[in-house]
Amino acid sequence: MAYKNKVFIACSLDGFIADKDGKVDWLHSLPVPENEDMGYKKFMSEIDALVMGRVTFETVCSFDVPWPYEKPVFVLSNSLTKVSDEHKGKVQLLKGSCSEILHSLHAKGHQRLYIDGGKTIQRFLKEDLIDEMILTTIPIVLGDGFPLFSPMNQKLEFACTKSRIYAEAIVQNHFIRKR
Amino acid sequence: MAYKNKVFIACSLDGFIADKDGKVDWLHSLPVPENEDMGYKKFMSEIDALVMGRVTFETVCSFDVPWPYEKPVFVLSNSLTKVSDEHKGKVQLLKGSCSEILHSLHAKGHQRLYIDGGKTIQRFLKEDLIDEMILTTIPIVLGDGFPLFSPMNQKLEFACTKSRIYAEAIVQNHFIRKR
Repeated sequence: MAYKNKVFIACSLDGFIADKDGKVDWLHSLPVPENEDMGYKKFMSEIDALVMGRVTFETVCSFDVPWPYEKPVFVLSNSLTKVSDEHKGKVQLLKGSCSEILHSLHAKGHQRLYIDGGKTIQRFLKEDLIDEMILTTIPIVLGDGFPLFSPMNQKLEFACTKSRIYAEAIVQNHFIRKR
Repeated sequence: MAYKNKVFIACSLDGFIADKDGKVDWLHSLPVPENEDMGYKKFMSEIDALVMGRVTFETVCSFDVPWPYEKPVFVLSNSLTKVSDEHKGKVQLLKGSCSEILHSLHAKGHQRLYIDGGKTIQRFLKEDLIDEMILTTIPIVLGDGFPLFSPMNQKLEFACTKSRIYAEAIVQNHFIRKR
């Protein structure tokens, strides 16, 4: 089976995915041509569903844009009990351990998962459940914020298989877990 | 004048330059062809002197290799008072603020400086005194260790101008400070 858990995320040169106030406006502070999505559409075409934490879900909801996902979104939360009418049919709540979550999603036929949001990525990394990471480095040393990585007790070896520079400034590196 | 302060350093995927015991053996855990120096000689040919902290100096001294530098090395230390006979003519001690250090080195005719070692790089970054960073990412999530970057109060914008993959695994990104 082609079970894969993938990450597609932007971070600062010093490894933060959001500033200390949780803001991500600096992600878009460098000029990128409007028609350049840095591989996002292709990536989204290759996943079956998204898995994100509540904080990331609420951040997405706070953006002044229509619901941005065409694929099913599963929000991990112990506190949310139901989704708003606005998100019915688009968002489902899940809780449990990473393996329980994966079991549930695989049973629904979702094999290729986009694992998103700092805390969720960290949870999956800690259990060595991430197979691919496409990391887009916004070349700003931010100084402080929410880190992409968190302390772990084991080393995980990846290999960088692709690297591409966008807008003469931003670099996107593609890492595959070596097993 | 062509005053430049440059960094050439390897770090883990999660941004550590040494593990929690100060060890760097994991840096060499991936196979790289013996004749592949990943741009090190070219980089060294383009600098006039090295500046490193005491900890980095002592780490270099602990390696079972002949003294590895042909260029003058300046070790920043408040505790060392003299260099050993072995390092006479190769190593000089310096102390003071970053600007005092630069003033002293520029007066000696050293314009292009290799700023090395975590604490020293962090000191120079905090004062926005780094012009170029060649960061070689060893694609291992280490989990813990000594970070390359430290908290800062200001954002610094760079641009990634070059990216290259070595040994189908390691990625080297070249960042230039945008001023």
